[in-house]
Amino acid sequence: MMMDDDMENGSLGPFQDQPRTFPNMRSKPYVPLVFRVLMGINVRVLFVLCLLGLAVIFYIGASTSRIIVFVFSICIITFVFSVYLSKWVLAKDEGPPEMAQISDAIRDGAEGFFRTQYGTISKMACLLALVIFSIYLFRSTTPQQESSGIGRATSAYITVAAFLLGALCSGVAGYVGMWVSVRANVRVASAARRSAREALQVAVRAGGFSAIVVVGMAVIGIAILYSTFYVWLGVDSPGSMKVTDLPLLLVGYGFGASFVALFAQLGGGIYTKAADVGADLVGKVEQGIPEDDPRNPAVIADLVGDNVGDCAARGADLFESIAAEIISAMILGGTMAQRCKIEDPSGFILFPLVVHSFDLVVSSVGILSIRSTRDSSVKVPMEDPMAILQKGYSVTIVLAVLTFGVSTRWLLYTEQAPSAWLNFALCGLVGIITAYVFVWITKYYTDYKHEPVRTLALASSTGHGTNIIAGVSLGLESTALPVLVISVSIVSAYWLGQTSGLVDETGNPTGGLFGTAVATMGMLSTAAYVLTMDMFGPIADNAGGIVEMSQQPESVREITDVLDAVGNTTKATTKGFAIGSAALASFLLFSAYMDEVAAFAHEPFKQVDIAIPEVFIGGLLGSMLIFLFSGWACSAVGRTAQEVVNEVRRQFIERPGIMEYKVKPDYGRCVAIVASASLREMIKPGALAIISPIMLGFMFRILGHYTGHPLLGAKVVAAMLMFATVSGILMALFLNTAGGAWDNAKKFIETGALGGKGSDTHKAAVTGDTVGDPFKDTAGPSIHVLIKMLATITLVMAPIFL
Amino acid sequence: MMMDDDMENGSLGPFQDQPRTFPNMRSKPYVPLVFRVLMGINVRVLFVLCLLGLAVIFYIGASTSRIIVFVFSICIITFVFSVYLSKWVLAKDEGPPEMAQISDAIRDGAEGFFRTQYGTISKMACLLALVIFSIYLFRSTTPQQESSGIGRATSAYITVAAFLLGALCSGVAGYVGMWVSVRANVRVASAARRSAREALQVAVRAGGFSAIVVVGMAVIGIAILYSTFYVWLGVDSPGSMKVTDLPLLLVGYGFGASFVALFAQLGGGIYTKAADVGADLVGKVEQGIPEDDPRNPAVIADLVGDNVGDCAARGADLFESIAAEIISAMILGGTMAQRCKIEDPSGFILFPLVVHSFDLVVSSVGILSIRSTRDSSVKVPMEDPMAILQKGYSVTIVLAVLTFGVSTRWLLYTEQAPSAWLNFALCGLVGIITAYVFVWITKYYTDYKHEPVRTLALASSTGHGTNIIAGVSLGLESTALPVLVISVSIVSAYWLGQTSGLVDETGNPTGGLFGTAVATMGMLSTAAYVLTMDMFGPIADNAGGIVEMSQQPESVREITDVLDAVGNTTKATTKGFAIGSAALASFLLFSAYMDEVAAFAHEPFKQVDIAIPEVFIGGLLGSMLIFLFSGWACSAVGRTAQEVVNEVRRQFIERPGIMEYKVKPDYGRCVAIVASASLREMIKPGALAIISPIMLGFMFRILGHYTGHPLLGAKVVAAMLMFATVSGILMALFLNTAGGAWDNAKKFIETGALGGKGSDTHKAAVTGDTVGDPFKDTAGPSIHVLIKMLATITLVMAPIFL
Repeated sequence: MMMDDDMENGSLGPFQDQPRTFPNMRSKPYVPLVFRVLMGINVRVLFVLCLLGLAVIFYIGASTSRIIVFVFSICIITFVFSVYLSKWVLAKDEGPPEMAQISDAIRDGAEGFFRTQYGTISKMACLLALVIFSIYLFRSTTPQQESSGIGRATSAYITVAAFLLGALCSGVAGYVGMWVSVRANVRVASAARRSAREALQVAVRAGGFSAIVVVGMAVIGIAILYSTFYVWLGVDSPGSMKVTDLPLLLVGYGFGASFVALFAQLGGGIYTKAADVGADLVGKVEQGIPEDDPRNPAVIADLVGDNVGDCAARGADLFESIAAEIISAMILGGTMAQRCKIEDPSGFILFPLVVHSFDLVVSSVGILSIRSTRDSSVKVPMEDPMAILQKGYSVTIVLAVLTFGVSTRWLLYTEQAPSAWLNFALCGLVGIITAYVFVWITKYYTDYKHEPVRTLALASSTGHGTNIIAGVSLGLESTALPVLVISVSIVSAYWLGQTSGLVDETGNPTGGLFGTAVATMGMLSTAAYVLTMDMFGPIADNAGGIVEMSQQPESVREITDVLDAVGNTTKATTKGFAIGSAALASFLLFSAYMDEVAAFAHEPFKQVDIAIPEVFIGGLLGSMLIFLFSGWACSAVGRTAQEVVNEVRRQFIERPGIMEYKVKPDYGRCVAIVASASLREMIKPGALAIISPIMLGFMFRILGHYTGHPLLGAKVVAAMLMFATVSGILMALFLNTAGGAWDNAKKFIETGALGGKGSDTHKAAVTGDTVGDPFKDTAGPSIHVLIKMLATITLVMAPIFL
Repeated sequence: MMMDDDMENGSLGPFQDQPRTFPNMRSKPYVPLVFRVLMGINVRVLFVLCLLGLAVIFYIGASTSRIIVFVFSICIITFVFSVYLSKWVLAKDEGPPEMAQISDAIRDGAEGFFRTQYGTISKMACLLALVIFSIYLFRSTTPQQESSGIGRATSAYITVAAFLLGALCSGVAGYVGMWVSVRANVRVASAARRSAREALQVAVRAGGFSAIVVVGMAVIGIAILYSTFYVWLGVDSPGSMKVTDLPLLLVGYGFGASFVALFAQLGGGIYTKAADVGADLVGKVEQGIPEDDPRNPAVIADLVGDNVGDCAARGADLFESIAAEIISAMILGGTMAQRCKIEDPSGFILFPLVVHSFDLVVSSVGILSIRSTRDSSVKVPMEDPMAILQKGYSVTIVLAVLTFGVSTRWLLYTEQAPSAWLNFALCGLVGIITAYVFVWITKYYTDYKHEPVRTLALASSTGHGTNIIAGVSLGLESTALPVLVISVSIVSAYWLGQTSGLVDETGNPTGGLFGTAVATMGMLSTAAYVLTMDMFGPIADNAGGIVEMSQQPESVREITDVLDAVGNTTKATTKGFAIGSAALASFLLFSAYMDEVAAFAHEPFKQVDIAIPEVFIGGLLGSMLIFLFSGWACSAVGRTAQEVVNEVRRQFIERPGIMEYKVKPDYGRCVAIVASASLREMIKPGALAIISPIMLGFMFRILGHYTGHPLLGAKVVAAMLMFATVSGILMALFLNTAGGAWDNAKKFIETGALGGKGSDTHKAAVTGDTVGDPFKDTAGPSIHVLIKMLATITLVMAPIFL
């Protein structure tokens, strides 16, 4: 416990003075309290409790809608499947003791950081919950709420409960991602000693486990909330709430999820990249030792970083993406169903949950399609792992198209517009194609098979300076195509929706926005498989580190190196997905925000006019928020990396035996430095993101009150949201692509091109890579989360702006 | 002539094979055709012609308004004053022959490039004039135009004439800036042998000459156009145009100015920074020779670059800023005067011209206040040149506040709202304070006396990578304060304007936007002095280069080094001015655009609603345009710099005697490479900036036509403009500040801090400086121009979008 406190307040505690060597790192394995309580209960009692819980859930679900029962069943089945996957992975051997020892050190570091980080986050979440509660307690209610008899207290309870559940689930999603990756890494490393195919399979199944848990939890969490509120508030019975208004109550869930994801991504991102940059700058550039070399004192911190930054944070990120997207689509479905007076609107509202239930099924099939060869003792020539993953993806995507068609026909068929479901199915197809094109563009700009990265590598041959200029230019340029693709897909999905035949009372077509929502769902209809491929990356990366550190033969390293390279590509791809879906989800949540404001303000709120100076300023400040946030995220990494560099340099000077493998470096001290620094550094950008929209809205509300300008606060916040979204999309694309391209330009040179490893060109390329690290793994992904957090926070906090 | 063609089509022509050494560079001095014609005429005839021209201008002015006569008189007087300044500068000695020889080479390079560059630009301008003409010939006219009897042909002639005059004046502004700087540089170098004070005075007066010409030409050009149109169209006589509609006809002038400025800035910026980066990367980093060392083959190209990039381009840039700002303020003044039914609206319309006339006067006083000590043979201890310039600035600013008050009382007093002039005077004060705070913020982030640059320098000690990360973060962070300042000043100026007491027919306050316009004018009310300080920088820089190359004693170098450092600070300051005024001018032109569209469309156009998907996409594409443009501008520099690096490396290898001063490097070849590359590279980003808004507006107009959405094209373009403005402001702030901070972090280390010159820390800092070069001198300033060009192009091209 003392150590935690020390980490939090920045002191290095016991690490401060006494140098510690590697074996001392091992401590008791950490189990979160909730698991400890569960494990303390008798197994039979637990089983009975589980069954009872399930029965209650199904009962509530059954009283809501048959669709909810379907969703529950699918989720439960795939949860069982995920337990099978995890058992399968854990049954694999942990390899020789030296591997297990390294893996233990990584696990300790990761779990220790996770515990402290999530301790801090949960305290902040509770504080924020209190703030939300008091805001809702003192603000007016909407006419809908009044007519359905929901008082202030009820609406406050509902929002806070949803917020806390979202935060909890997001935390669990992060924990699960990390839990499996710190256990799978050593098993992949061990399997790599036998065959590449087996190593691949272990990594994929481990990734698949957490992907299914993450997506499944997002779906079942929303489904439980929905049906609980449905039953509790007596929805659709006379005098109470209409079912089409119900989804708006779920927004707190999305906010909770994005709140936790933001801090998880910031803290984890700073951790992983500070360790990586620090290790690379001294190890690779100054000392000329390879990556993950056991002589580098920062190497364990780097490997821990992969788990807390890539696995835990990406789990929370994708969880939040899916939750935000489901909720925004449900809100839009409800609004549209109400406008078109559709008799049974539940199909439109619950459509996103069904899409993601099918997502779980088809992704499970995709994961299972990646099998090891039957007899692992026969050495077959190594296949390209990317091709294998791609094959699995093809299986998934074909199934996804089919099930998407089925879901649209099942849920979106209405007699008012018999062909509407077909239009929406086409919207889904637009989304799937968009996702595919996005992946292609990301690959084009970041893969060294193509022109851009090769040009970047060539620019390294004229020095550090030209390498950076070329990388920055490449990143800035690479924003163009994705933006064009998003634009085309928004316009075409909107158009398909508008022409679906759904009209409101006055005969105006109204399906446009819902069409965009369906396209977003299409884009994310293979989310679980995509997340599997993403989680695969850091696990393979870690396995490579363990192989390197435990000094395995060259052949084993080759296998993990190939897997690692594939992981880099899949990671870049997921970022494309995340940012594309963030753009669309944020646009959808924006229109939900406008509806919400209109409801609270008792007057129509249809337009955000950027010709009003205050609104223009809101936009300016929104864009500025993105720039400032990115700057703070990058500088946090830079500052922490400098601490690591100084520490590693100090160790090399004070213990000259390290380079001859005579003295073990003090890994623990680097871990402690990085952990305490990243906890300290995640607060500032995170607080900025949360406080500034609230402040802005409140200030302009006051100003509007005195200048006789009604709704000014809400309008300014709306402009801030839109400009922040647009700037955020571009900034994230820039940061992710530049970072990925730098990384692969370095890898290209390491294949022997332009002078190969150790040349001046390579050194310049390593500089580019270190600059790219905070771009692509700290600032970039944090912006994905930031965009959606802004969208949800404005929705939840809307009462303050009015 | 052959050489020009070669330069244009990218071949190196005679430089391709035969190496040329330095003295061969000298060729016949170039004089533009218009000057040659003028010089061919008998002096007396010329004098009579001049007087006749003046008389005509004054006659036309007198038939328009007494205010115009006042403006003309002031302009003529300050032109005479500027001739005195140039004569004073040219009367100084050119120093020893080795200095003159270097200066000649620089002049030849600069004039050769200028000729070719402006040849290309003028061809493009003529083409664009044709396009504009045909568009106006085939499009409908506004009701105002119809009622005043202006047919299609007249309106086409007016727009094209204004466009061409604007383009011509902008070109002349650039030429004048370069003309004086290539002549003053050697004189400053020579004066530095005698005293620092004298060198400072020469540089300031040379800068002052071009500043006065640039500002004066912007003012007199608009005044001439205004009064010519006034007399020609018989404004304010019954049945013809109202004076309040007249300013809208001047928009073509602003577009022409910004069109030329954009290409001047792109071409010049690419030229100067490619040469600089190339020279630094090989010279400083690889060979360890100092800046501007005669052994560096790229040094002449670098010195030429200062003239074509900083002097010529900045002249065109500031010319365009002032023109855009005057025109937008005139339009708003006219609109407001019409809405408020003010009896004599000419005061409101001509106010900006008077403000800038006073600007010329007070800046002249400021320039004159910088005097050399009476007896230059007495060596006095060197004063801080920054303090001297600052004292002159204080004099100027105090006078500007006074004259601003006088102008508001004189022109903005109206009986309808007797205290309105006082409110507007306060708006002006807001602008002046904003400018002052902007300067302070820029200094804080880019001066090594303050924390940020010192932190950046410290980050260099841990390597190239952390230096770049820290610089990027610093740049991103530094956007926050200026944006907050702009926001506060827009809101407060708007509020002061709204409460001025001016009301429209229905009693609504209408002065808000005009208040913002007045604040912009306040910000630019010392423009000529600011431009003087800016022009001073590259002249001092060049003088330093000449001193270094002609191997003067250490004491002389010290003097020019100090002047150069001061020049860097003043340069950064001007950029703050330019971007601040660009933000405000663009916001004003935006509302002019909305009025224009409403006039063409015969229906009100008051709102740009970003909740419409297509409009949102317009915004997304607008922001993307900024990112893509910046990327292309940076990569142009990077690519050209790589060519320079390879050439310089080749020369060092092929002529090993260079390092021992035995063989003269082939300067000419570097000049030719940079010249041809920058002409080639400026086309792509420039074309993007011009074509994309036209394309976008036209495409969405068609789409809107088919989806039954009127004015869609105009709305999408409006969103594009606003989002591009916001992203452009942030991107320019980021690029300028990061670049300036990197530059000064390097300078800080060169003072001996953190290891001093030659250390690894210094090398990392030089990498940062090279990365910052295209940021702060190519992409950043090009974005200032781009923002205003977008605002004017949308105004001029509005008929296509409808």
